[in-house]
Amino acid sequence: MTDTTPDEMLTAPFRSPLDPLRQVSVEVVRWSGASSNLAHDELTAEEPLELRVAGADTQPSQTLAVIMRTPGHDEELAAGFLYGEGLIRGPQELAGFAPGSDPDGFPSDNVLEIRAAPGVDLQRRVQEEGYSRQFAVNASCGVCGKNSVAAACAALPPLPDGLLRLMPAVLCALPDRLRAEQRVFQHTGGLHAAGLFDTSGTLLALREDVGRHNAVDKLVGRALLDGALPLAERVLLVSGRLSFEIVLKALAAGIPLVAAVSAPSSLAVDLALAGNITLVGFLRGSSFNVYTHPWRVSTADH
Amino acid sequence: MTDTTPDEMLTAPFRSPLDPLRQVSVEVVRWSGASSNLAHDELTAEEPLELRVAGADTQPSQTLAVIMRTPGHDEELAAGFLYGEGLIRGPQELAGFAPGSDPDGFPSDNVLEIRAAPGVDLQRRVQEEGYSRQFAVNASCGVCGKNSVAAACAALPPLPDGLLRLMPAVLCALPDRLRAEQRVFQHTGGLHAAGLFDTSGTLLALREDVGRHNAVDKLVGRALLDGALPLAERVLLVSGRLSFEIVLKALAAGIPLVAAVSAPSSLAVDLALAGNITLVGFLRGSSFNVYTHPWRVSTADH
Repeated sequence: MTDTTPDEMLTAPFRSPLDPLRQVSVEVVRWSGASSNLAHDELTAEEPLELRVAGADTQPSQTLAVIMRTPGHDEELAAGFLYGEGLIRGPQELAGFAPGSDPDGFPSDNVLEIRAAPGVDLQRRVQEEGYSRQFAVNASCGVCGKNSVAAACAALPPLPDGLLRLMPAVLCALPDRLRAEQRVFQHTGGLHAAGLFDTSGTLLALREDVGRHNAVDKLVGRALLDGALPLAERVLLVSGRLSFEIVLKALAAGIPLVAAVSAPSSLAVDLALAGNITLVGFLRGSSFNVYTHPWRVSTADH
Repeated sequence: MTDTTPDEMLTAPFRSPLDPLRQVSVEVVRWSGASSNLAHDELTAEEPLELRVAGADTQPSQTLAVIMRTPGHDEELAAGFLYGEGLIRGPQELAGFAPGSDPDGFPSDNVLEIRAAPGVDLQRRVQEEGYSRQFAVNASCGVCGKNSVAAACAALPPLPDGLLRLMPAVLCALPDRLRAEQRVFQHTGGLHAAGLFDTSGTLLALREDVGRHNAVDKLVGRALLDGALPLAERVLLVSGRLSFEIVLKALAAGIPLVAAVSAPSSLAVDLALAGNITLVGFLRGSSFNVYTHPWRVSTADH
């Protein structure tokens, strides 16, 4: 699909005009056993896309949805989303797409204006009361036009440095403890897991769900109902990948260290950096990467 | 966390009162090489949860969100969702929860009424214009109170039997072809992939995204923009798990065979059954499970 060689892809910000999946290169602290060194890692880009629907006549356009996505093929994403939600019945109902602009009026790659064909009032379809299928409408959030990390941090201040410090060996023991409790996972293979640990590595609570965000919401909800927020001395571990939304939930709950068995997205790292959260990825065996605020992880006796 | 032994868990519909993650036992056609037999598989339950917010005074309650989730810990999920969205600031703003009812007035485990503490008007907070964070509001969809599969099928009729038939060996070759094209995945480990194949096993299009649904939306969107819907002779393969929403997108796009490297959810299987879609899971090496409509897979020469 592309002529780009693997070596070129590592340094290029875009793979190729035909396949413009963006990657972001970052510096990480790579731990292996009790030693660490600086290394580079490639992250998948994650950015919000605001879909806006042009109004009939002189009506202003309206936000239809905000989708966290990997940039590239945005018009396809918009078309597929509209079709899947039953808002268009075929390509003849679309007139085209236009780049949108941020709240200050500057063009933005993260805002896409959808133009319906003449006679098709998409805004009316969205608003129709009789609309019978599940449909995610997002309030205009302001995260897309400018800077979603800045927007999140305007609502949620960074965490304090706090007291939580962790030995690398304690971190490395967490995934096995999570898996040992994941009995359902071993049967069905269909669940995301999230675990809350104390600084000695004891698993305090485990929640599993088909939805990765749900598992984290269930943990935070339990803590909220127990009056235990903020979770300033707790570690959150998720079984899969780390998205922006999971870091946002951790920031809201005051969790200073978030770890994942798999990779974080670029926006997850950006938000952790701004929110003073230590972000750990690829936590496997005796090694892991620290993407932000590595000072919370050290071999010093705490 | 529970006294249930692994053997007991296989036959019990609920794990235990303390950890009520539901599993569903289903019969599958298990292919290995060119031979098949009937087998049992355990699925993770996936069901929609409608969160409703009670109004101030005599106002009726309103749908806040519909979340696809694994049943269990629903009050925690609701509390964590409200907190993560910034709609409550602490447990003191919640008065409690009550089981909801379906459109016919019968109690439903999939509807949860949220009662705010006196003086806290959650409906007003939801509606506030100044609400600055991304927030998924779902229109009242009717899928939760009764039967989400029935609701989906009322909007989308089952697919015709059609002409698509597939040899097991063709199916087994698909994951390697998807991975060979997933160069970005090999670098970052952070992407979901979805591929569209023809019946000879040729990969026609690949899309990758941090969001699993986005990758499918991008494929379907491309087909829509090309005027290629319905995709009656195409196979969809996803790199991870199969949710209800992915099967719903396939049903809308007319794709008769959907396969995944990992497990389907219970609701994904239910919808595939009703929508006349052949659902394949655990497609690994030379074996896989067929969950619904197995007649589209056979060793007969087509």
